Amino acid sequence: MAESWVPVAPSSDFSLANIPFGIISTSADPTPHAAVAIGAEALDLKMLISQHGLEKTFPGIDGLEGVFSQPTLNAFARLGSGVHRSVRRRLQEILGTAPSSSSLLRDDEELRARALIAQKKVKMHLPMDIGDYTDFYAGYHHAHAVGVMFRGLQNALQPNYSHLPVGYHGRASSIVVSGTPIHRPVGQILLDPAAEPKQPTAGPSRRLDIELELGCFISRPNKMGESVDVNDANPGHIFGYVLLNDWSARDIQTWEYVPLGPFNGKNFATTISPWVVLADALKPFRAKAVDNPTPLQDYLKEQQTDNVFDIDLEVELTTADGGETVISRTSSKHLMWSFPQMIAHHTLGGCPLRTGDLLGSGTISGPGGEGESGSLLEMTHGGKREVLLSGMDARTFLKDGDTITLRGSAGPRGARVGFGECVGRVYTSLRR
Amino acid sequence: MAESWVPVAPSSDFSLANIPFGIISTSADPTPHAAVAIGAEALDLKMLISQHGLEKTFPGIDGLEGVFSQPTLNAFARLGSGVHRSVRRRLQEILGTAPSSSSLLRDDEELRARALIAQKKVKMHLPMDIGDYTDFYAGYHHAHAVGVMFRGLQNALQPNYSHLPVGYHGRASSIVVSGTPIHRPVGQILLDPAAEPKQPTAGPSRRLDIELELGCFISRPNKMGESVDVNDANPGHIFGYVLLNDWSARDIQTWEYVPLGPFNGKNFATTISPWVVLADALKPFRAKAVDNPTPLQDYLKEQQTDNVFDIDLEVELTTADGGETVISRTSSKHLMWSFPQMIAHHTLGGCPLRTGDLLGSGTISGPGGEGESGSLLEMTHGGKREVLLSGMDARTFLKDGDTITLRGSAGPRGARVGFGECVGRVYTSLRR
Repeated sequence: MAESWVPVAPSSDFSLANIPFGIISTSADPTPHAAVAIGAEALDLKMLISQHGLEKTFPGIDGLEGVFSQPTLNAFARLGSGVHRSVRRRLQEILGTAPSSSSLLRDDEELRARALIAQKKVKMHLPMDIGDYTDFYAGYHHAHAVGVMFRGLQNALQPNYSHLPVGYHGRASSIVVSGTPIHRPVGQILLDPAAEPKQPTAGPSRRLDIELELGCFISRPNKMGESVDVNDANPGHIFGYVLLNDWSARDIQTWEYVPLGPFNGKNFATTISPWVVLADALKPFRAKAVDNPTPLQDYLKEQQTDNVFDIDLEVELTTADGGETVISRTSSKHLMWSFPQMIAHHTLGGCPLRTGDLLGSGTISGPGGEGESGSLLEMTHGGKREVLLSGMDARTFLKDGDTITLRGSAGPRGARVGFGECVGRVYTSLRR
Repeated sequence: MAESWVPVAPSSDFSLANIPFGIISTSADPTPHAAVAIGAEALDLKMLISQHGLEKTFPGIDGLEGVFSQPTLNAFARLGSGVHRSVRRRLQEILGTAPSSSSLLRDDEELRARALIAQKKVKMHLPMDIGDYTDFYAGYHHAHAVGVMFRGLQNALQPNYSHLPVGYHGRASSIVVSGTPIHRPVGQILLDPAAEPKQPTAGPSRRLDIELELGCFISRPNKMGESVDVNDANPGHIFGYVLLNDWSARDIQTWEYVPLGPFNGKNFATTISPWVVLADALKPFRAKAVDNPTPLQDYLKEQQTDNVFDIDLEVELTTADGGETVISRTSSKHLMWSFPQMIAHHTLGGCPLRTGDLLGSGTISGPGGEGESGSLLEMTHGGKREVLLSGMDARTFLKDGDTITLRGSAGPRGARVGFGECVGRVYTSLRR
């Protein structure tokens, strides 16, 4: 991969090999519109096109009229993977130093000053208009560890787990972009879960947790009543990926979740990273999923077997006084189901997935125990052991003022493909 | 209540006491826009306003600019209950024969011919842009009966049931308006549920069922992190009501639903009736909910105790050869939780409800057994007994070609307030 003439730090997630898409607003143009990330800069696509016109900026690519001026990436996503690929390649020409590269931006100092804006100076917005959000449970080691805690070793994984990607409908209205403050939810909880009869109280969650996940955005929709073939799902129906923190109030969840699943324990907030990494950019990092010895139904059989990604993931906890501790390191390869399998299963009965719909992978934990866990629930064995932090601090669950930062990237230094940060700080509102 | 000069059959759901809102398109104006129902006619509000102007049609009511030309009722809903009340009252003046009534439409033959269109000649659309759909489980007799079937008498109702309105996030993308054909879903099912190890197959659902529910649309949103007080929810946050058929594939549901709740067993289709009956129109039919002896948390305590509605509901099954049988008659009063309680609980942790969001009550069944059940699952005791139909036909679950029609209305003949029909016909697609 060639280099970019824009300075890219070796540790940057946003090398020329990445080119993720996001929605920004700037002091010069406060209406949300599209950009890509390169190094520590955002390239304002609306600005670039307004200067050179669509035909000169993206020659030969149809359907882009007005697309990058919109407040979400939905119109772009809908154009399908062929267009995404062409646009990304063209941006690599514009931003690259290869002999074939374009001088459109590089040699225009005035345009560079206007179109290349430091990421820390732009405001990021939710990249997509998300119609429906579905959260799966494909992280095998997480599902097993939590299953043991909630239902005992005998029933840790339900009989259906290895036959289908278990998932449930999440809440779209509370999905927020990285940086949005996270309000500690009030809910019904059992202070003494063992007491009979069970007597809940209403109060702030005492067991506020995180879930480290990968999120996947749908590009082309399927019609109601028609299913998506597992081998057509990628790249046919996948736009790209983000990091996702499925904040979870364990005490609320434990009391409410039978028989219809998680509700208020989850629907108060879900944070996603702002830059959508395109399916193409993650292709070099494909890996084999967690082995599933169960014979699959035909509709879940993939021709391609390296169907998940080996992306290094980490979770950092920053306390109110600034102490930073990476509390988990793992990889997104620890899934037993791929996103194409999730899509095939989700649409098997004819459920329509629309452009912009979001699928969560489920919490990703490694096989190695606490230091590879995607949730505090696992790290602390259900709140029984503390996670030690720098500065002699410790946690079972999150305190007010704690900040959680998820990071994920793959590839060698200088040519990394990553998500940037997915950040949320916990607070308790005084106003109820 | 005065009468309308538009002919209203005594059995019509759409008397002058109702005035429900919907989205229509017509041969003269094929762009979806707003209307109200009166008798067997639809009054085209866009047409009425284009003739007389907003100030003459709705004098003194602010915020209506362009609202009735939109393809959904969201903008109208967002204006809040004060505006909904004023608009409905003004339409009762325009359509009524009282001395105070307006001659705006009645005395203008040419306008009447264009603005009053037979309902059977208009196409109805989904009335709202539905961001999120939440389905509750507030029908006490249903929850108990199904709980016995799924988990035995001992665990029929989970300990949380009487402490909070149990609910789960549904699928918004597959909500369709009455009349839309319903595709029988394919899914993973256990042909022999007792066999060990459990071995699913993939095929069309053999246990396709209905659920008779009331749906409630949100008007004013709450901010993320802020809860709605149970006593402010109605009319502060409620726009109006529809009938809702939560089609359910019981065999798919049984296998998939642990531990995260219903998914493909539900997300293939949900049908709603097209006319939104405003909160004000149902006010005269308030009734006491099913008694709940459990002491409630403060946030669920309502000042008003007649917090559900006594609306007569019925379910009709029409076979492919035209035989019609009413298989259930019950009332919407058989709920243990009111919509204000559902809203208070849903937002307790700060989950934002947006304008147009839909809440389902959960299946409504009466206490009297089969003939009052809101699902075939209950009527047939889990598929063990047949429901007899006219013409010596019988069903356990739905066959292809079957049509289900839900109806609901309250009040005396000639002044009825009802929903019209909520219809869906089942078919199996040859194309997979």
